[in-house]
Amino acid sequence: MELWCEHAWLGGEEVTAGVVLAVEGERIVSVRTGAAAPEGAVVLPGYTLPGLANAHSHAFQRAFRGKTEVGRGTFWTWRERMYEAASRLDPESYRALARATFGEMALAGITGVGEFHYVHHGAGGAPYEDPNAMGAAVLAAAAEAGIRITLLDACYLHGGIGEELNETQRRFSDGTVERWVERVGALRAGPTARVGAAIHSVRAVDPGEAAAVAAWASERGAPLHAHVSEQPAENEACREAYGRTPTEVLADAGALATLFTAVHVTHPTDRDRELLGEAGATCCLCPTTERNLADGIGPASQLRGAGVRLAVGSDSQAVIDIFEECRAIELDERLATLERGNQGAASLLRAGTGEGQRAIGWPEAGEIGPGMLADLVNLEGGGVRLAGIAPESALSSIVFAAGAGDVTNVMVGGEFIVRDGAHVRLDVEEELRSSIASLADR
Amino acid sequence: MELWCEHAWLGGEEVTAGVVLAVEGERIVSVRTGAAAPEGAVVLPGYTLPGLANAHSHAFQRAFRGKTEVGRGTFWTWRERMYEAASRLDPESYRALARATFGEMALAGITGVGEFHYVHHGAGGAPYEDPNAMGAAVLAAAAEAGIRITLLDACYLHGGIGEELNETQRRFSDGTVERWVERVGALRAGPTARVGAAIHSVRAVDPGEAAAVAAWASERGAPLHAHVSEQPAENEACREAYGRTPTEVLADAGALATLFTAVHVTHPTDRDRELLGEAGATCCLCPTTERNLADGIGPASQLRGAGVRLAVGSDSQAVIDIFEECRAIELDERLATLERGNQGAASLLRAGTGEGQRAIGWPEAGEIGPGMLADLVNLEGGGVRLAGIAPESALSSIVFAAGAGDVTNVMVGGEFIVRDGAHVRLDVEEELRSSIASLADR
Repeated sequence: MELWCEHAWLGGEEVTAGVVLAVEGERIVSVRTGAAAPEGAVVLPGYTLPGLANAHSHAFQRAFRGKTEVGRGTFWTWRERMYEAASRLDPESYRALARATFGEMALAGITGVGEFHYVHHGAGGAPYEDPNAMGAAVLAAAAEAGIRITLLDACYLHGGIGEELNETQRRFSDGTVERWVERVGALRAGPTARVGAAIHSVRAVDPGEAAAVAAWASERGAPLHAHVSEQPAENEACREAYGRTPTEVLADAGALATLFTAVHVTHPTDRDRELLGEAGATCCLCPTTERNLADGIGPASQLRGAGVRLAVGSDSQAVIDIFEECRAIELDERLATLERGNQGAASLLRAGTGEGQRAIGWPEAGEIGPGMLADLVNLEGGGVRLAGIAPESALSSIVFAAGAGDVTNVMVGGEFIVRDGAHVRLDVEEELRSSIASLADR
Repeated sequence: MELWCEHAWLGGEEVTAGVVLAVEGERIVSVRTGAAAPEGAVVLPGYTLPGLANAHSHAFQRAFRGKTEVGRGTFWTWRERMYEAASRLDPESYRALARATFGEMALAGITGVGEFHYVHHGAGGAPYEDPNAMGAAVLAAAAEAGIRITLLDACYLHGGIGEELNETQRRFSDGTVERWVERVGALRAGPTARVGAAIHSVRAVDPGEAAAVAAWASERGAPLHAHVSEQPAENEACREAYGRTPTEVLADAGALATLFTAVHVTHPTDRDRELLGEAGATCCLCPTTERNLADGIGPASQLRGAGVRLAVGSDSQAVIDIFEECRAIELDERLATLERGNQGAASLLRAGTGEGQRAIGWPEAGEIGPGMLADLVNLEGGGVRLAGIAPESALSSIVFAAGAGDVTNVMVGGEFIVRDGAHVRLDVEEELRSSIASLADR
């Protein structure tokens, strides 16, 4: 199959005109530029980018979008509401909700998701007959929605440093790290699915347990993610208990490596940034969630300066829009620094494409080039948000003004999953409505 | 005509089900609630709100959306780029661009705009044959797009405190405040248009001139707007020249009144907030622009606490989305305070409706009630962003998750200007493309 892209982003500071992609199976085998549309080629008008990566997702949190905004509070009161929603899930309802949410991601141009998965067990922590029933539900959901997934199976053993698990948290826990290893070892991936590991946080996993999870990931070359320094209170509790920052605890546990992604990193120390940079790690910022949860503004440019790669995630699903996440990295940093242009469009978009795909263990996605996966997102540019876009500044216009609703066509592994703004298999709106309504009725 | 709204927001903390609006001419004459749809009524499914107010707009800046993001810089280097775009305008191209931009606003649910207008004259400052040719172009554009407008005609006389006008700025200047008064006095409004005044800023208008503009507005009961404390450098220059803050200078000039709107107010002092609150003034925040221009985070809750009303504006047109502006007030404040729930959905939405309409001189718009204008925006709620919305939390879901693209129907003065997501008269996308392209070709 040949694809002709009117303009495509090949990774530089500008888009390239007349790009012909030869696709065999799920791969791009050759790229020509400056070409007219070959006869018989599939034409992608407007602008084509590599498939977007959503490197940090909790799919089930889509159920309470917009429903946690009443009254005052903090991250910690929001968490109570989140636990309440988590307590209603079972494998069937989780699969339906996740499929709808992944369908919304597909419509937004997301071709790969890192699902940070911690709702493992039944009420009170009793394992399902298949102890991986919940993980399997999430994997099936992604396959049905047509997007790639890395199931980042999270170890979650404590309710806080030195604290018991509460009723909801018991559903997250395998009891011991050995049992986490045993369960995760039985997970089966698929052609568009991979398995990775997660240390939920230094609150939920102690240093010795963190070392065991890190060793598991390292032995398998699997991506390893952890929530890190999202809130000042986490830093304080960690220092008090261990005399070290969360990043330092994870470094000493052997977690910091090139396949390690620290999620949030809103409140790092200078030393934390150095450690992450030296390890070649990634920091996954989730700016729309960090706004919503009053986390604060992460030091994105300082992290880049330390040699850290960046990724982005929709996290709490307050919105699902990778363009908004990418520009929010820069826009929120402008609010903190009162300077423009801390990062340009290409750097921001790399966080939402190649660096994000790499962070979730799909290094062969996220760029348009020979040998790469044919995972693509196409914006025809017809809507009012982008009307008036010009090729020489298109990359900036897309990063700073596009919305998820501007996505026209999406391809995963050489097959279209979204055509003319509609999912080719799912009625995503109806699936969102019915899955959220059935959860609310419980 | 009768309208039946499945749910409508009547100003409280929640939406109301089964709202019947009787409309005569351009007004709502009665409101019934809890009713089934009367026979023959026009049915508005989903959620209906009062028409949105965009209280601060520079329509022409839509031409360079996404095109000012290359390289480092500040507000002040951005301004150079803006001047370059302004220098290309003439009455014909301005009318075409403004009509397209107001068309995009209509599609976003905006039924009234406060156009802060300062590109008055031709090259080098030479008046057009009709000295109000540019203002007339903007008024015609709004009428053609079907939205209400208040032309906030800005007095702009200096290039900075004690500084000469540069080449572009000469197009903004009438030379003296007396000639500003004379020109503005000849402006003719229309059935959906009003005229107000603006003091561009304490940079461009000195204290004596500001007093003359304030007197003009006060005598006519017209709204008066001014850019205030958007940047720390403006505060410093003002203190150095006058020994007072910009708000204090405007207060001493008699500008602070209930029909006064201070735009931005990102960096006020405690005393500034008190002065604005005591006057019953409005502060118009433009959060997406304030992010983009690295202005900083305005103290919205402290302003509310001082008794100030809030409005929002799309300002530089980085995006045109009043829902995004409303939630950004709260989300950016969360980044500054690390607390959630500084303001709830109803308070935020009032900034985008009633308080905004009042600030631009349309106090009879912005609420759904007997005697009010039949200016309405309807969201059917079918898109993926809002799918799963529930009536009891709909207001929060709309304010915290809706996008301009979720707007289905828009009514101004009892007539639909947007139906099923399309403008009833204009091909807005094509008008944006052609008007922006023709400007770029100059």
